[in-house]
Amino acid sequence: MSVFFSFDGIDGGGKSTQLKLFCQWLTEQGRDPVVCRDPGSTAAGEQIRNLLLASDDATPIAPRCEMLLYMAARAQLVDEIIRPALEAGRTVVSDRYLLANVVYQGYGGGLPVEVVQQVGTVAIDGVAPDCTFLLDLDPAVALARMGRQLDRIENRGAAYRERLRAGFLAEAAASNGTVHVVAADRQVEAVQDEIRSIATRLFANR
Amino acid sequence: MSVFFSFDGIDGGGKSTQLKLFCQWLTEQGRDPVVCRDPGSTAAGEQIRNLLLASDDATPIAPRCEMLLYMAARAQLVDEIIRPALEAGRTVVSDRYLLANVVYQGYGGGLPVEVVQQVGTVAIDGVAPDCTFLLDLDPAVALARMGRQLDRIENRGAAYRERLRAGFLAEAAASNGTVHVVAADRQVEAVQDEIRSIATRLFANR
Repeated sequence: MSVFFSFDGIDGGGKSTQLKLFCQWLTEQGRDPVVCRDPGSTAAGEQIRNLLLASDDATPIAPRCEMLLYMAARAQLVDEIIRPALEAGRTVVSDRYLLANVVYQGYGGGLPVEVVQQVGTVAIDGVAPDCTFLLDLDPAVALARMGRQLDRIENRGAAYRERLRAGFLAEAAASNGTVHVVAADRQVEAVQDEIRSIATRLFANR
Repeated sequence: MSVFFSFDGIDGGGKSTQLKLFCQWLTEQGRDPVVCRDPGSTAAGEQIRNLLLASDDATPIAPRCEMLLYMAARAQLVDEIIRPALEAGRTVVSDRYLLANVVYQGYGGGLPVEVVQQVGTVAIDGVAPDCTFLLDLDPAVALARMGRQLDRIENRGAAYRERLRAGFLAEAAASNGTVHVVAADRQVEAVQDEIRSIATRLFANR
């Protein structure tokens, strides 16, 4: 039985840690997961990711170009990794997915949210997560947690980070229950327990 | 007075030669043109172009990914070069544009044409050519003219090239007169004369 999970939320919410613990648990349950990151994981997708990260004064990337590059990487990820894995009955766990694009380039970056969703529909071609864990916390707390040099996107100020959080929560509210808001301002084990409970219920209902 | 021209059509129709002669003529007319190619011309766009050309077994690029990469390059080209040039009253001449994407990835590549056009609307953000010269000729003649090693896209067979030609002609017919079909199976000078006549009429009516 194939299930597609994704993890998302603002940086500093412990997404990588939680994803890793979740995958360990899936493996213990006998569900050897296919793990990927969006953008990335494919050869083309990693090159696109590098291009996105290399954006600077010498290689400017306009907002629509940025959004379309994320979409291109995602289309490749779907066709090369996620769809084949789901068709083979595997469990897929992705570090971010379309939701991040909608929030960062729409709510955060100023592109119309419905435009990002419209192009997203083309990019994912029907392959949407069954369950997204949205790790939610106060952006100020998230920032303090990170305790390192901020990258280009992270270094955009408090109002920007508040727009991101609000965007994630708005999309979760509109998701018909597929996006689960998990309070991330708790101990790692408490957060992971809630994630596993949600996944256990989902597996039981399939 | 700003005017946006593009050149398009199947390879082997003399597009590069005609574009060069046309730009020489524009310069003689006192209209120093901004010349660009799509994909390309910007730093990000050239990197995307290289990624598209590097597609092989080690770096596969799925059709939707390919289409979205072309769109990303075009969005950057619009924001960084074409729109600022037009706003400054310049004449812009582009080697290919959205039409090529619609024809190669839609009619030729099998993506729904309306999907490519829908994403294209997002990518170009209202910046469409005032006049496209579609250099049209029999694909078999075009192929014979090229007389060199074919690249990945060119090397796809006669039926594919016929679909491309038919696609270009269908889009020209639906373009409300902005796409001009120019018979390219003639002497270089005769083709260029027709192109200049079309441009002269366009300038006179502005």
